[in-house]
Amino acid sequence: MTDVLLIGVGTGNPAHVTREAQDALRSAALILVPRKGPDKSDLAELRHQIIAEAGATAPIVAFDYPERDPALPYLERVEAWHDEIAHRWTTAIAQAPKGSIALLVWGDPSLYDSTLRIARRLNPKPTIRMIPGITSLQALTAAHAIPFNTLGGAVTVSTGRRLREEGWPDGAETMVVLLDGDCSFQTLPGDQFDIWWGAFLGMPEQVLCAGRLKDVTDRIVALRTEARADHGWIMDTYLLRHRSG
Amino acid sequence: MTDVLLIGVGTGNPAHVTREAQDALRSAALILVPRKGPDKSDLAELRHQIIAEAGATAPIVAFDYPERDPALPYLERVEAWHDEIAHRWTTAIAQAPKGSIALLVWGDPSLYDSTLRIARRLNPKPTIRMIPGITSLQALTAAHAIPFNTLGGAVTVSTGRRLREEGWPDGAETMVVLLDGDCSFQTLPGDQFDIWWGAFLGMPEQVLCAGRLKDVTDRIVALRTEARADHGWIMDTYLLRHRSG
Repeated sequence: MTDVLLIGVGTGNPAHVTREAQDALRSAALILVPRKGPDKSDLAELRHQIIAEAGATAPIVAFDYPERDPALPYLERVEAWHDEIAHRWTTAIAQAPKGSIALLVWGDPSLYDSTLRIARRLNPKPTIRMIPGITSLQALTAAHAIPFNTLGGAVTVSTGRRLREEGWPDGAETMVVLLDGDCSFQTLPGDQFDIWWGAFLGMPEQVLCAGRLKDVTDRIVALRTEARADHGWIMDTYLLRHRSG
Repeated sequence: MTDVLLIGVGTGNPAHVTREAQDALRSAALILVPRKGPDKSDLAELRHQIIAEAGATAPIVAFDYPERDPALPYLERVEAWHDEIAHRWTTAIAQAPKGSIALLVWGDPSLYDSTLRIARRLNPKPTIRMIPGITSLQALTAAHAIPFNTLGGAVTVSTGRRLREEGWPDGAETMVVLLDGDCSFQTLPGDQFDIWWGAFLGMPEQVLCAGRLKDVTDRIVALRTEARADHGWIMDTYLLRHRSG
């Protein structure tokens, strides 16, 4: 049986790494990392910096991400992709020394991340240990110095796809949106909401914008397009608050 | 103008502390801490351990928490309490050396925490900098090795009071409940939900329980009562997932 360590390392700021994450990295017998793609090579370097700063000396083994099959419907496509990644992990760790396999996860391994679901597909079933990390939710609220929730209020954490397809949840005061490649906040009535948006949160490239949604929508769309063109990729998130709240 | 650093330090596990939090503690000119009450002296000791491990050498100044006025309605009571704490901070930091005032916040300063709202009441208005910390949301999902969200799904983060008063949010798949002194999950139909519960998350005293809600409700209530009696206080949280999800 394999031991798998899923280690949350924060949103790309090496100072987000906890002592628990560093201890876990040092305890690993092997560290499994995706081979760097052409667009996200800065993340690959950050990953190696985090491993080095932890003082981890385990061998680092790379695997390639497969392509997703665009012919399949969304959920099926994701399931097939997870299966294929689990297969590649199995190949990559076949010669692993006895001990734990560590995977670094940006943010936290529980939050809109595939690593846990992929690890559960390994055969034989591994023992999984998760190390919590700073998420983009906390990095966003910290960057803007705002509370996550209103006093005693609720917060819906959701995706761009759901905001686009289902609209604002009934009775919600605050919504944090992740995985939104389409600036889905544009589908909301801009005079009823405030927005706090951020990209590359916690990193030197961090970009922030906040205000009444109708006043800043165009600016955020432009900032996002520009930042994405500059870096070849983007990770962004935002918090929306209903103005009646 | 005062500089205030609100530093998230995780859920009571000193290994949750990030390098960013340690750097912020070392940069402070004064560290403001609540005077320890009789019940939570273990938290006071943890706070001093975290300060020492960061290598922070700033003077530590204590303040007393006021009593909340039970005669006032909820929101008014909280507002009056925040006003009074801000007043006590002002007195406590009157003789502060030039530089930043640091406050340690359990979990993350954005999540159901008063510190930001109190800091904003200071006069003159301070510059506030927030350092993100590991929240009980991440500590809970890590302890149980479960995902926060279902695949592409939404999560409602809310309070025990709201679950009790408003019931399960329409269409929600997952709910994480904080600030629940009344085991409000008992108000739900137990056959429709799974629950993952945890207290003292990340600490040596950690207690976990998970299962189908109807099968584990009594066990969680008993565990909670027992743990609270043992320690004199308790911090717990739980994740509920609708079984149709």
